[in-house]
Amino acid sequence: MYRYCLGIDLGGTSIKFGLFEKNGSLIEKWQIPTNKSDSGTHILKDIAGSITERLTNRNIDMEEIIGIGLGIPGPVIGNGFVSLCANLGWVNIDVTEELQKLFPIPVKFCVANDANAALMGEMWQGSGKDHQNLVMITIGTGIGGGVIINRRLVPGLFGAAGEFGHMPIIPEEERTCGCGRKGCLEQASSASGILAEAVRLLKEEDMSSSLRTIEDLRPHHVIQAAKAGDQLSDQVMNRAARYLGIAMACITGVLDPEVFIIGGGVSEAGPYLIDLISTYYRQNVLYLSKNTEIKQATLGNEAGIYGAASLVLFD
Amino acid sequence: MYRYCLGIDLGGTSIKFGLFEKNGSLIEKWQIPTNKSDSGTHILKDIAGSITERLTNRNIDMEEIIGIGLGIPGPVIGNGFVSLCANLGWVNIDVTEELQKLFPIPVKFCVANDANAALMGEMWQGSGKDHQNLVMITIGTGIGGGVIINRRLVPGLFGAAGEFGHMPIIPEEERTCGCGRKGCLEQASSASGILAEAVRLLKEEDMSSSLRTIEDLRPHHVIQAAKAGDQLSDQVMNRAARYLGIAMACITGVLDPEVFIIGGGVSEAGPYLIDLISTYYRQNVLYLSKNTEIKQATLGNEAGIYGAASLVLFD
Repeated sequence: MYRYCLGIDLGGTSIKFGLFEKNGSLIEKWQIPTNKSDSGTHILKDIAGSITERLTNRNIDMEEIIGIGLGIPGPVIGNGFVSLCANLGWVNIDVTEELQKLFPIPVKFCVANDANAALMGEMWQGSGKDHQNLVMITIGTGIGGGVIINRRLVPGLFGAAGEFGHMPIIPEEERTCGCGRKGCLEQASSASGILAEAVRLLKEEDMSSSLRTIEDLRPHHVIQAAKAGDQLSDQVMNRAARYLGIAMACITGVLDPEVFIIGGGVSEAGPYLIDLISTYYRQNVLYLSKNTEIKQATLGNEAGIYGAASLVLFD
Repeated sequence: MYRYCLGIDLGGTSIKFGLFEKNGSLIEKWQIPTNKSDSGTHILKDIAGSITERLTNRNIDMEEIIGIGLGIPGPVIGNGFVSLCANLGWVNIDVTEELQKLFPIPVKFCVANDANAALMGEMWQGSGKDHQNLVMITIGTGIGGGVIINRRLVPGLFGAAGEFGHMPIIPEEERTCGCGRKGCLEQASSASGILAEAVRLLKEEDMSSSLRTIEDLRPHHVIQAAKAGDQLSDQVMNRAARYLGIAMACITGVLDPEVFIIGGGVSEAGPYLIDLISTYYRQNVLYLSKNTEIKQATLGNEAGIYGAASLVLFD
């Protein structure tokens, strides 16, 4: 009777939906825009309406749905209370309770932070498959991530587990991080950290560089130039990878995980980046754990819907 | 019928035993010397013999024993396989299987590394009571520790979870650590790290110091002098506490635990050290987690027997 589950990746711009068989096959995905007007009060109604419509079109009964998982771009307390989600305009919303009101029969809802959900997705159908103890590092504008122990997400007392971006590991850093301190990992290794360091070198050093001809310099230009052998860009990427390697060696000193999964926009640099990180990781980690697997995330943009669906299955 | 459990702290010099009520009351403790001759083949027989004798003297039947927990000074695989324990002379011993042969009826045995067992003890009856997610940092000659998530020990893939002493966080360190790398936490913050830094400053700096009159300088002299206001010792202890604070901020970026428990010989410095560590922790941690509790371990030398007994109860 229970044959399907739904995973929803709720973002500030769009809401992505995935309808899955319980074995993990993605049957259909679709998306709708996020209507953030009126303090985001339309969002849950839009979600319920879109689900009902699709299931009706496919002749799927709500009773065939194991549950609905939802990834939220902010902290989630317990199974669905959101005290503040600036990206959606939400203040003090019990998502599970509000969603249930919008469906005619009782439905199992599982709500989590979207980065944590993405990690669950990687464990279910991505590069973390068959692992029990995983760490995911998501390298985008900032650096976030998540931790799974015994196949369960570790939230942390203040919801700060997996906040790798603010590990204080760059002693010589003189710039101030967004969090107000100096020397956070993301100052060297995030997309914005990579860009800032490239800009600094271009300004302060005489080194020739292919980056000097680019008008609107972006992080991906630095990565591309480094891959193509540009020395200045290579220096920036080595700094980023070195601090990531040091941070990962610290993480291993805490958890000694089975696998590190590297996700987020910067991870699209692919094997070039994974190899660079691995080299610095092995240089810095205790010899016992030299062979930890380091893998690129494989679900990409779909990690959110896979992860949200898996919340239902692993609950 | 099940009323008691036994906890055994197996060390290289002595074997400590504790007989507990299942509510945590310690009824009796005793110890025997560790006979390491003949590759440690007498050890398990001595343990079984000592237990049988005590229980007979107290008219306690083996059937009233919930189980026997054992802490081993080395890595333990699964529930009791020891591939190598240099401190005991053991090679490839299945402790659980061998122990069972020495008792007339089936007994529940739980075997773990002694540092991990000590942490379980602190959770059961020490300063970690009522917590689910704990980190213990044991500061002795080196620095070790353990991690508990959802009331279960996290061993790590290669048994290296909680190896905080080798987190690579001292970039300016020029000396080489016992592990072969440079810049490990224990180079600044362990008893031997504290001593080495004091010796270096005494040699390289002109600063006056009460330590200069001590012939056989030990780590506890440095701690005492720092408490008494000796400037050079204070500088050493601040360095130790600063790197501990940075390492703990990194640990929080991974797990955001409910409480840090500081154990081991150096922790006997008490509130002076806890306050110093707390100050540096708060300076370095992400604002979300500024209020993590930092406590001194309370079970001291008895943590081993409490911990071993608790392995049976929390299994």
